[in-house]
Amino acid sequence: MKDDGLHGSERVPLVRPRVPASDELTSLLDSIWRSGRLTNDGPMLRRFEAALQKELGWDNVVATANGTMALQLACRALRLDGEVITSAFTFPATIQALRWNGLVPVLADVEPRWLTLDPASVAALITPRTCAIVAVHAFGHPADVTGLQTLASRHGLALVYDAAPAVGVRVDGVPVTAFGDASAVSFHATKVMHTVEGGAVCTPHDDAAEAVRRLRNFGLGEWGGAEEYGTNAKMNELQAAVGLSLLRTLDAEVAGRAQAAAVYRELLSNLPTIRFLWPSDAVSGNYAYAVARLRAGAAPLADKVHAVLGRHGIDSRRYFSHRYRGRGTLCPHPTPVADAAAEDVLCLPLWGDIPRRTLMRVAGLVAEAVS
Amino acid sequence: MKDDGLHGSERVPLVRPRVPASDELTSLLDSIWRSGRLTNDGPMLRRFEAALQKELGWDNVVATANGTMALQLACRALRLDGEVITSAFTFPATIQALRWNGLVPVLADVEPRWLTLDPASVAALITPRTCAIVAVHAFGHPADVTGLQTLASRHGLALVYDAAPAVGVRVDGVPVTAFGDASAVSFHATKVMHTVEGGAVCTPHDDAAEAVRRLRNFGLGEWGGAEEYGTNAKMNELQAAVGLSLLRTLDAEVAGRAQAAAVYRELLSNLPTIRFLWPSDAVSGNYAYAVARLRAGAAPLADKVHAVLGRHGIDSRRYFSHRYRGRGTLCPHPTPVADAAAEDVLCLPLWGDIPRRTLMRVAGLVAEAVS
Repeated sequence: MKDDGLHGSERVPLVRPRVPASDELTSLLDSIWRSGRLTNDGPMLRRFEAALQKELGWDNVVATANGTMALQLACRALRLDGEVITSAFTFPATIQALRWNGLVPVLADVEPRWLTLDPASVAALITPRTCAIVAVHAFGHPADVTGLQTLASRHGLALVYDAAPAVGVRVDGVPVTAFGDASAVSFHATKVMHTVEGGAVCTPHDDAAEAVRRLRNFGLGEWGGAEEYGTNAKMNELQAAVGLSLLRTLDAEVAGRAQAAAVYRELLSNLPTIRFLWPSDAVSGNYAYAVARLRAGAAPLADKVHAVLGRHGIDSRRYFSHRYRGRGTLCPHPTPVADAAAEDVLCLPLWGDIPRRTLMRVAGLVAEAVS
Repeated sequence: MKDDGLHGSERVPLVRPRVPASDELTSLLDSIWRSGRLTNDGPMLRRFEAALQKELGWDNVVATANGTMALQLACRALRLDGEVITSAFTFPATIQALRWNGLVPVLADVEPRWLTLDPASVAALITPRTCAIVAVHAFGHPADVTGLQTLASRHGLALVYDAAPAVGVRVDGVPVTAFGDASAVSFHATKVMHTVEGGAVCTPHDDAAEAVRRLRNFGLGEWGGAEEYGTNAKMNELQAAVGLSLLRTLDAEVAGRAQAAAVYRELLSNLPTIRFLWPSDAVSGNYAYAVARLRAGAAPLADKVHAVLGRHGIDSRRYFSHRYRGRGTLCPHPTPVADAAAEDVLCLPLWGDIPRRTLMRVAGLVAEAVS
């Protein structure tokens, strides 16, 4: 968090991606150019995957072109087939990764505190056609990993996590990606740690990791039975270099965000129309988003605040609308908690060195708009 | 083509990717880091797409994460559904891009001169289930664009080109990507012009281009009926910067390769066991590959030569084996021409500044192995 702010005339983005240290990146890029090896399982990728093992909690880490491809290939590698119960409150990519696999997403409701998949809602949707649960660590807040694993084990279902925004999150000291049969993370530029675009699959299952490794490179090499669904989902050496550089700054980025969160909390927590979703004390969170729920009694205020901020040159984001509903998905039961969240959630600007005066300006406008 | 060769102990790759000029790239990267805009339809991507219009022959150019995703999204954008007749002699990505779309690839034979889709073989496979022809400019050699268009028009079929290796190729002065309903190109590091990984769709159809643009970014924004199949297929700003820099070197890269090809020709053309596929005089080729067909009478020699070169630290590539046959594809008729090519094609090392002594060493070993 800086004190020397942006100029008032400059647009305030939702997030300003951390940039790798210039000297280090130049040196990494030079070594890539000299090697002549720019992609296809190169040395930088291998170093990055090795560095991720500790952070993600498994030896099996396979980096990919982006987080969507990570989830798509994780599902393929686990040979999922049939219906998949997933969250009614998520980014479209979760649904799309399933649909490209020919899977049928069945939407379950989320629990009201963290907006992550509600095991009771999942339980009510399990049928003989169900093959897996795909849970989402929404905004980086851990889903109920214990409740979901109990359910998956009891019914013999695979348990996959869309952990797109959850790099750096720990539950009782354990990386949140160390649960379930596989997790897919994102290293998109807007994430707490990024590779510009990028993602990874991590999994306890050696065979699934090996399958993702083959599938991301067209299924070339020795091969089981899925070659028709290989693709190009390779992370290249430049992405890996950016990731290697930024992985070391993850703690600093999270610390800066936590400080910024404290400012929002200080300035806005006394307003009854605003409730933030900050990490609970039990979780070492990553402050991936400043998630505000904005509501005056029954009336959601997210649209209004979004519009006010926009008029003042400040970006905010209405995560997540439900535009994919009904398109290849099933939603057998009502999902009132997800529906309410889709109406009242607004993510405010947040990044590691967001200036304090920017936070104060945003908070002031939000307070005015909701009062 | 350089005269100061590699050390004898250094492995000779199949291709050594051209590297962007250091000063220019540094300056482009600086402007990206300063902008804070690292991906998602950023200014560098827009400049790159604009620069590609002339090269690819259409105003509608949509850059993607890689060439496979370009082909996959082109097929989705054209709303293909059913059987697609495609080449029995191609890289697995062609087939995989169709399979992820739920399309059924029907394999037709290629013609013997250029190993591109044979219109007569295609014609014999058209049924009421056929929705499209996906032809391949194999190794950058143009398919029979006139014959295929006649066939497609007569039967009301979409005509899509997998033009992965064909950037820079012109037929009578017209870019080879300016034919059909869409072309998908690759900017993989091994291509004559690259973005490390990358690709693009170009098309005469505004609505198809708009659909690819939406689909590559999760189908966000205004929307037709395909949102469930959006994905992340974005080209990021770093890729676009590399592309902008290297696009200007395309002519030099092709010229260098043409010179290198002349050396291979000079040294090996008198051997009856070797036939190269160099561009014909009617075509302004890009020398994407040094494609040798190696055969002593009926006996293919590609495996043997590949092994000999490998023992001397020289990479060569057996394009294309048929490992994807029978995996989700139909092959109603024999494809003898493709089968023969799969046995006897070997691609030899080739890049813009490959040292002359490397070419001589490769040629010497090849000549020895086939004699």
